[in-house]
Amino acid sequence: MAARVPKTIFSGIQPTGIPHLGNYLGALKNWKKLQDNEESSTRLIYSIVGYHAITIPQPAAKLKQERRDMMAALLAIGLDPHRSIIFHQDQISQHTELAWILNCFTPVNKLQRMTTWKSKIATLKNSNDVSEIDDNALNLGLLSYPVLQAADILLYKATHVPVGDDQQQHMELTRDIADQYNRTYKARRYFPLPEHLITPASRILNLRDPQSKMSKSHPLASSRIMITDTDKDIASKIRSAVTDSESGITFDDVHRPGVSNLLTILAECEDSTPQTVAAGLETSAQLKEATAEAVIRTLTPIRDTFHRLSSEHTYLDQLAGRGREQAASIASDTMQQVRKQIGLD
Amino acid sequence: MAARVPKTIFSGIQPTGIPHLGNYLGALKNWKKLQDNEESSTRLIYSIVGYHAITIPQPAAKLKQERRDMMAALLAIGLDPHRSIIFHQDQISQHTELAWILNCFTPVNKLQRMTTWKSKIATLKNSNDVSEIDDNALNLGLLSYPVLQAADILLYKATHVPVGDDQQQHMELTRDIADQYNRTYKARRYFPLPEHLITPASRILNLRDPQSKMSKSHPLASSRIMITDTDKDIASKIRSAVTDSESGITFDDVHRPGVSNLLTILAECEDSTPQTVAAGLETSAQLKEATAEAVIRTLTPIRDTFHRLSSEHTYLDQLAGRGREQAASIASDTMQQVRKQIGLD
Repeated sequence: MAARVPKTIFSGIQPTGIPHLGNYLGALKNWKKLQDNEESSTRLIYSIVGYHAITIPQPAAKLKQERRDMMAALLAIGLDPHRSIIFHQDQISQHTELAWILNCFTPVNKLQRMTTWKSKIATLKNSNDVSEIDDNALNLGLLSYPVLQAADILLYKATHVPVGDDQQQHMELTRDIADQYNRTYKARRYFPLPEHLITPASRILNLRDPQSKMSKSHPLASSRIMITDTDKDIASKIRSAVTDSESGITFDDVHRPGVSNLLTILAECEDSTPQTVAAGLETSAQLKEATAEAVIRTLTPIRDTFHRLSSEHTYLDQLAGRGREQAASIASDTMQQVRKQIGLD
Repeated sequence: MAARVPKTIFSGIQPTGIPHLGNYLGALKNWKKLQDNEESSTRLIYSIVGYHAITIPQPAAKLKQERRDMMAALLAIGLDPHRSIIFHQDQISQHTELAWILNCFTPVNKLQRMTTWKSKIATLKNSNDVSEIDDNALNLGLLSYPVLQAADILLYKATHVPVGDDQQQHMELTRDIADQYNRTYKARRYFPLPEHLITPASRILNLRDPQSKMSKSHPLASSRIMITDTDKDIASKIRSAVTDSESGITFDDVHRPGVSNLLTILAECEDSTPQTVAAGLETSAQLKEATAEAVIRTLTPIRDTFHRLSSEHTYLDQLAGRGREQAASIASDTMQQVRKQIGLD
């Protein structure tokens, strides 16, 4: 009988700087919830994935700032470095070492069928039509991104991975690669086949164009709320959010995307459901007022902590150093075993 | 004005175990010659590229043995760890880290046009026709091999790379990637654009089928001479080498490939030219006798040293450890600078 595999939850977020409300309600809030609710035997590993951020080269100063801001944000939302391992993926070179090894198990045509690199190039080109995208603009970083992601997960022998629905394809690939490795090197169950942790997290939409996700790259600043926005900004952005002219407040994300998006935000802030919070509301104005209040109440402590921490570079680097050590210790154990299994040691 | 770039010669060989005469006369002998002839200010870096060996997964025990045998062979042919840095590439994870970064500069369609992965798959399938090969059997390791090779070279800021003619395509890619990096990060001339060091090294052919290269994978053991072959084996393999029925001994690699191959081997062993050594010979029997004598004279000291060293695991591991330290020190300097340039530090 195989030894019981300890539960390990791994997730990563790109260093995009200060998160917006969509990042928070859609992903990070859930990281904190897992930290509060998981048994103490569960290992929690959260990483800022800098190696992924360079698949589209960006100015060095911007990336440097955004890596640090993301670290401050993770602490501001309540992640506790005494409970969770919080670290910069790009400080652990074993991620790329394992990725290279897994490259040798990954058929190129499987990667070419992935849709994520197509959407990424589409975003870059301001196109909404993925079918227009051919692979002329494709660099090897974008194509092999899912293999690095598999390495991120397998390096820590993660058993559960909370990620968005758009990552379903990548999670299947990760399981395929792990299974292929285990069989090739007769290392039965060496890499656990990680499960996609379906979370109740919601998809938060663009306030000005509720057909698309809330995003940092949208030209209108009023289309998104940043976790550092002032109370006044929050109220004004929600006031100008697109709703509709129907009477009454009902949740219907197909026909009333703007109203439903606000209901989702309000419900997330109150740990309730959109249907429940809709019950007490009659007009768009009421909905907007309630939502603005709830968002302000939710973000105030996060914003305050973020501002306190974000200029404390020494403290942030210290915490990053601590996370790095913890991650490196697991990563180098795994790589020692892997190198033996494949004949490099 | 840019500072004068110090001359650095880098080359790598796959850990295929005990080299054959083609490996020795075609590449390794030249490594030794560079070591003897280069000015002392030239840095010489020779690596055994284990990360490349796994693009086609192989049994762990075999790879382990072949890595160690190749290290013993490099010492046996006269590489001096006090003059040259001799190390296992797979022990320096920065190779894969830099490769990941360079992935993000490399268009996928440029890699798809490379012919090397096609020949590799053709060899695996025992096909001689590269045009038959489509990319269904292609894994990401094989496709991205040239980018790891570029990282191998650039990590040490190599200025000169002695490799075979079949690597011309890869060298051009390495220069393109280096140039693209330098321009993207405005790091003018950070990576030198390495030159392909055209060497006088000869292409040694299969003794039984002089249309193809001497190779470890050919089913007939008599088609190749290993550097550890006994005098008797060497003499008998050369005696059974394919020649032709023309009278006289002349060098004509198109019409008399078998005879010309023996002349090339003889000339290489005597540091002469095929034309010169041909002058004193009249029959195939004479040619074979002279070649066998010369090969035996050349390989005897190498074989003796190899046998003395190959079982000294502790000593070999010690030398590998020394090479690793020297290589790691250069590699980590480069990566510190690169990480700063791209915003990861």
